[in-house]
Amino acid sequence: MSTRVTVLGSGSWGTTFGKILADGGSQVTMWARRPEQAREIDEAKRNSRYLSGINLPRSMHATHDIARALEGADQVYVAVPSKSARETLKQIRPILAKTDAPIVSLMKGVEKRTNMRMSEVIEQVLGCDRDRIAVVGGPNLAREVAQEQPTAAVASSYSAETAAVVARASSNAYFRTFVNTDVPGTEFGGVLKNLIAVATGIVDGVGYGENTKASIITRGLVEMTDFAVAYGAQPETMQGLAGLGDLIATCQSPLSRNNTAGRLLGQGYTLDDVVAHMEQTAEGLSSVAPILQLAHEKGVDMPIVEQVKMVLDGTMKPRDIAPHLTTDDDTPQEETQHAAGDRGGALRRTLERARDLFGDGGGRARRD
Amino acid sequence: MSTRVTVLGSGSWGTTFGKILADGGSQVTMWARRPEQAREIDEAKRNSRYLSGINLPRSMHATHDIARALEGADQVYVAVPSKSARETLKQIRPILAKTDAPIVSLMKGVEKRTNMRMSEVIEQVLGCDRDRIAVVGGPNLAREVAQEQPTAAVASSYSAETAAVVARASSNAYFRTFVNTDVPGTEFGGVLKNLIAVATGIVDGVGYGENTKASIITRGLVEMTDFAVAYGAQPETMQGLAGLGDLIATCQSPLSRNNTAGRLLGQGYTLDDVVAHMEQTAEGLSSVAPILQLAHEKGVDMPIVEQVKMVLDGTMKPRDIAPHLTTDDDTPQEETQHAAGDRGGALRRTLERARDLFGDGGGRARRD
Repeated sequence: MSTRVTVLGSGSWGTTFGKILADGGSQVTMWARRPEQAREIDEAKRNSRYLSGINLPRSMHATHDIARALEGADQVYVAVPSKSARETLKQIRPILAKTDAPIVSLMKGVEKRTNMRMSEVIEQVLGCDRDRIAVVGGPNLAREVAQEQPTAAVASSYSAETAAVVARASSNAYFRTFVNTDVPGTEFGGVLKNLIAVATGIVDGVGYGENTKASIITRGLVEMTDFAVAYGAQPETMQGLAGLGDLIATCQSPLSRNNTAGRLLGQGYTLDDVVAHMEQTAEGLSSVAPILQLAHEKGVDMPIVEQVKMVLDGTMKPRDIAPHLTTDDDTPQEETQHAAGDRGGALRRTLERARDLFGDGGGRARRD
Repeated sequence: MSTRVTVLGSGSWGTTFGKILADGGSQVTMWARRPEQAREIDEAKRNSRYLSGINLPRSMHATHDIARALEGADQVYVAVPSKSARETLKQIRPILAKTDAPIVSLMKGVEKRTNMRMSEVIEQVLGCDRDRIAVVGGPNLAREVAQEQPTAAVASSYSAETAAVVARASSNAYFRTFVNTDVPGTEFGGVLKNLIAVATGIVDGVGYGENTKASIITRGLVEMTDFAVAYGAQPETMQGLAGLGDLIATCQSPLSRNNTAGRLLGQGYTLDDVVAHMEQTAEGLSSVAPILQLAHEKGVDMPIVEQVKMVLDGTMKPRDIAPHLTTDDDTPQEETQHAAGDRGGALRRTLERARDLFGDGGGRARRD
């Protein structure tokens, strides 16, 4: 008997994920807020607004009645906009209380007022065991997945069994889902990559090429890792599909809103111009200040994100944003200063000796 | 008094590195094998064959007399083709024996007959202390650096002081050099990335987009790390500029020969067609078999490189190369199986339990 799954939200990622699940063998019911959209998916097997030109699977059904959508669901995937997550979850809390179906967040971002991750919002609103909650991350540009271009993802839950159940349903011939148990890391990957995508967009707009972008992605991953680890993530998650994988795909996609916003800034438009120009908000722009605030509270250095803020504020020219400007000290620095352990310490001491040799007493170490 | 440095080899990377050093304040003497090329660099401040359109610094000089080139050198950079490295080094051994100038390899690749890394060849031929030897790696496409697009690199030596001396000379307003002491890791990064660049080239040629490429880069970095660690490297080096940084730049560059070779394979050309079509060899193609042999000897799994080999051999269709095909087992897998430690073990045991629950007794674990 095949698994019955419900996907709440029929935007581009929700609809694409419904297709992944259906192509993986599940019976899928989509919930769409607007009746005409539910009808189009259910009858025409299309979602012309969010996934034009993509044929949806025959086994996918849709309704705008959220209670009906959830009937008999073995798994529930949530793909509503993060700003309406709390409200939608409150509405379905009584229904979900009667089942033990896993709840899977497909949402990216943190809740504005509370700075909570989406899985934390789910746990708080539903009041359920966190072992029942999972999240999915990875290099998953919706349209490419909908076109069945092969990619991989990771399903994460504090319960390895929940992660495995979700990964099994979320795998098919073109979409392979791995598992981990690092929920904060998997969610932070999807949030923090937007900030680095703004930075690579800026240098792209300036006209710099692959070296500069690769340097920013590499050093940006260090900042993402430092931040996420300070907030409870495992470093290896950031090096995996939900961290590095999502980061690379987002930074390389010309369709990414964050990348586009950065590119316009790099071309010399002001932040006001960019916001006025773009139809949908680029989440990376509004996350810069709160993430830097959170980083500051834990003493985490994020020099690339700081430089993005200076470009947004108009206090740094886009062409000056670059990895070589992460310090005003020209003493050679260890590449892996963030790594703990003796090896780093020994190298740092030798470098301090070298600095004395060079007589560069005025320099300051990056972490001081 | 400014540092006097000599760069042996005036190809695109050697000449570009000479420009980096000159722009960093050193007095630079280039050695070119062909007299007319030395004359062009010295007089016209151009290298029209390898860096057309780039103005070289006034403080850069050149000669085809290798003994004169080395006179009074405080540092020596070696940028000859890796296949002629041993011969060139033998020739200058008597000169270098009289100084204690650091010897810096700018070469990528392993020596064909011996499978030695370039720093090992230097150490063997010169018979010098390994603390005197350094290597440089990073996201450094030569033409972009020559155009002064900002990027970062890493200088590596067993001696942190040698690394610091090299990093200081190799830094300027557009090129920032960090340091580490992991010579094998820094060199393996420059070798292994070529194999993954062939893989991303193949999927590009097939017509897949950013998700697929990002998945291959992310999972490819895991293979590179497993291999390099088995041969003495530090994992964090592979996550840095010489590993991940160089990997991203190479995989995204349309000018990379390895990427181009992959793209032709992805479009359906045979290996013979590709080799015949390309003027210069794509090193990644010839490294596949030896690297897999070395991996096999240490029990390292490299599923993506294996798939590249199958495409080269004509036993796999390019469109079937993809990260989701790294196993024939559909049991959900941990993302970080390569990571050591208890956390992995606990998750693996739970997954084995989950597999029993699912009754999937026929599956095999990836590492078995």
